Amino acid sequence: MALSTQPYKGARDFYPADKRMQKYLFSVMRRVCESYGYEEYDTPILEPTELFASKTSDEIVNEQTYTFTDRGGRSVTVRTEMTPSVSRMVAAKRQELAYPLRLYAIPNLWRYERPQRGRLREFWQLNADIFGVAGLAAEQELIQLLDDIMQAYGAKRDMYTIKLSSRKLINAFLGEVLGMDETQITTMIRLIDRMHKMEHPEFIGQADAIFSPTQRETGASEQLFALLNTSSLDSLPATIANHETSISMKRIIEKLEKAKITNVVYDPTIMRGFDYYTDIVFEVYDTDPENNRAMFGGGRYDSLVSLFGVDAVPTIGFGMGDVTLLNFLETHNLLPKLRPETDIYIVTIGEADEAASKAAADLREMDINVALDITGRQAEKQIKTAEKKGVHYVLFVGEKEAASQQFVLKDLESGTQETHGLERIASIVKDYRSA
Amino acid sequence: MALSTQPYKGARDFYPADKRMQKYLFSVMRRVCESYGYEEYDTPILEPTELFASKTSDEIVNEQTYTFTDRGGRSVTVRTEMTPSVSRMVAAKRQELAYPLRLYAIPNLWRYERPQRGRLREFWQLNADIFGVAGLAAEQELIQLLDDIMQAYGAKRDMYTIKLSSRKLINAFLGEVLGMDETQITTMIRLIDRMHKMEHPEFIGQADAIFSPTQRETGASEQLFALLNTSSLDSLPATIANHETSISMKRIIEKLEKAKITNVVYDPTIMRGFDYYTDIVFEVYDTDPENNRAMFGGGRYDSLVSLFGVDAVPTIGFGMGDVTLLNFLETHNLLPKLRPETDIYIVTIGEADEAASKAAADLREMDINVALDITGRQAEKQIKTAEKKGVHYVLFVGEKEAASQQFVLKDLESGTQETHGLERIASIVKDYRSA
Repeated sequence: MALSTQPYKGARDFYPADKRMQKYLFSVMRRVCESYGYEEYDTPILEPTELFASKTSDEIVNEQTYTFTDRGGRSVTVRTEMTPSVSRMVAAKRQELAYPLRLYAIPNLWRYERPQRGRLREFWQLNADIFGVAGLAAEQELIQLLDDIMQAYGAKRDMYTIKLSSRKLINAFLGEVLGMDETQITTMIRLIDRMHKMEHPEFIGQADAIFSPTQRETGASEQLFALLNTSSLDSLPATIANHETSISMKRIIEKLEKAKITNVVYDPTIMRGFDYYTDIVFEVYDTDPENNRAMFGGGRYDSLVSLFGVDAVPTIGFGMGDVTLLNFLETHNLLPKLRPETDIYIVTIGEADEAASKAAADLREMDINVALDITGRQAEKQIKTAEKKGVHYVLFVGEKEAASQQFVLKDLESGTQETHGLERIASIVKDYRSA
Repeated sequence: MALSTQPYKGARDFYPADKRMQKYLFSVMRRVCESYGYEEYDTPILEPTELFASKTSDEIVNEQTYTFTDRGGRSVTVRTEMTPSVSRMVAAKRQELAYPLRLYAIPNLWRYERPQRGRLREFWQLNADIFGVAGLAAEQELIQLLDDIMQAYGAKRDMYTIKLSSRKLINAFLGEVLGMDETQITTMIRLIDRMHKMEHPEFIGQADAIFSPTQRETGASEQLFALLNTSSLDSLPATIANHETSISMKRIIEKLEKAKITNVVYDPTIMRGFDYYTDIVFEVYDTDPENNRAMFGGGRYDSLVSLFGVDAVPTIGFGMGDVTLLNFLETHNLLPKLRPETDIYIVTIGEADEAASKAAADLREMDINVALDITGRQAEKQIKTAEKKGVHYVLFVGEKEAASQQFVLKDLESGTQETHGLERIASIVKDYRSA
């Protein structure tokens, strides 16, 4: 029986046009990250399983990892996120590294999920993190970086909203104000994280089930819903209005407004799924009604590095997935038309193989990307191939052209052609390329 | 207990300096491949296991794959090589694709092996393939491409040798001349492939065991050793001297010599491990006595695409691994010194956070990569951080500088400093960058 030509479910083959788009997406990420001084790193796609256990969310570890035993009996996991790995790397050279340490990577990650819009089993994710800054300036910079990347893709600020919240604040509210214990708090935070995925009465029912009878009697439920309905830091319940994190978030929003990032809002329902967040968390939402959903996000996780037996390092980071990004750019018509990298397709006339090969080599010396037709077919068929590949120019090389060193360059889009020496041809092509 | 900071055995963490080197290696590969009209593609790192069974070598499939069952009960394998995947991709769009189809990728691959010099469990490998050309011009182009990549790294032709052989020729010799059957031939080819890893008497013993008594009596053994000792196509045994592939190889070597690639030789012992090769195979050897070993190679595999139930496509390709490449470049002192991508480290003086942030943003607008110190530490400590990171310039920003828009730029290498406006600073930095 013939083998299937399909890739593994939920994963993609990248044909040249797809790969070109991916390279465009990544090159923007790289350019903007490096303009802020972030340095690229990478880690292995397979990690010891214990790295993910208890640091990622339970749902991911128990249901969504690709975990197996290697031939030496060790349990390994295909990475589902980058944060545990980068924390491991930083912990390994805790003393030698220079802080603030700004790192980014664009790893591929795997989660065993039902493939759906915006969600595949294999996806790529920009991860940008800053290690060693406890102050708000780190939050400000990371949100600015995220916003700058969106701007670099051509997004306008009315196309997305950056929603801000704080784990520390919700912890204080649930613990100090409502009197919940740690277990209750963890359960409630996970419930709030899923809030927008369920009907409101269901959410209320489940939330009520978490409160103790005494808490319910003293109106904990109502107080919680009042907080979750707050849409501005100015109308926070009095019990937490002056909490240090409330003030911090106000300051971050003010500072970002000064930098013209006017689409940052407070949203108390933002939790982020991972257990390791310690304070400010944020999420970027698409404002398009067709695609109104969380796209990317991040937050502060000050304790993760210390799990490796070294002193804690204050850290904040975010992730930006390629699948949601592609959906967003498509929805808002922001995907560019990308040209093939090949500048010229050489059509070899008759037996002029050596002359064609020489012309190709000469043009490459002048930094022109040249595909040479080496099939020996008739010229017409060679031109068809060039057209099918979307190459802009064909160059005809026969014995006559080789002897005179004058070659016909044809623009396949306009159909016009002109005859020149190779240097002039290289310069025409470069002009087109940079136009 | 604290978690281990070590990556999985045989895999690497890439800290910024390591990643920078990897990006350099890959950028050279990309640049040269694209100059020949090769287009980049990619495929998922997990593939259905049946894709690798019986196409790769038995040793790899049975002993070296990472194979496991996913949560849905499907057997998946972490890719050990790219050839089966790219064949699958081409088969899936057999009709739509335009031939000659030139493809390249730089995937990471995994093999469960004992880590050693030149061999790790996770490695990257450039794969370049040309689909749809049956003639020798494809062999010639691919070897030229491989050679061009070596040249682009600064290698001289006396640093490496390109060894050429042919599966078709050895098959003809073993089958038609020595009278071996298919099973004997397959076993013998695998033995010859391991020839240089064993002592000569051991090899002779094992080869003799493959021959039948009649074959041994008629001198098959001696004839085989005579062939394997041949170092030139001009001194081939008469029985195969005029075989079409002998003539083809001569022609390839001649054509490459014309293109100044003078380090191509015939070596009948070159087999390449994979079962799918159908004719010409080649391997690049390091000539350094310390590192005299096969580094990269490839060959023609005309039948693989047809395993997916479509018509066969003549194909030839090669792989070039990053670990062996790094060893080679180190051995021959060809690794470049790479600078950090960050151009300027801004030292924030006093409380001038906003001014510093503004200066950073202005410089980024002028395409300068700027890391901003946001720690609020004393200037001396900030400078130390810049030095530790290897950033060439620091820029001092305080309230006074912000008011006058005149900033001190310090060259950390020479220790000299000068005072300018931001535009002039940007131009100084760009001059340094492109120097």
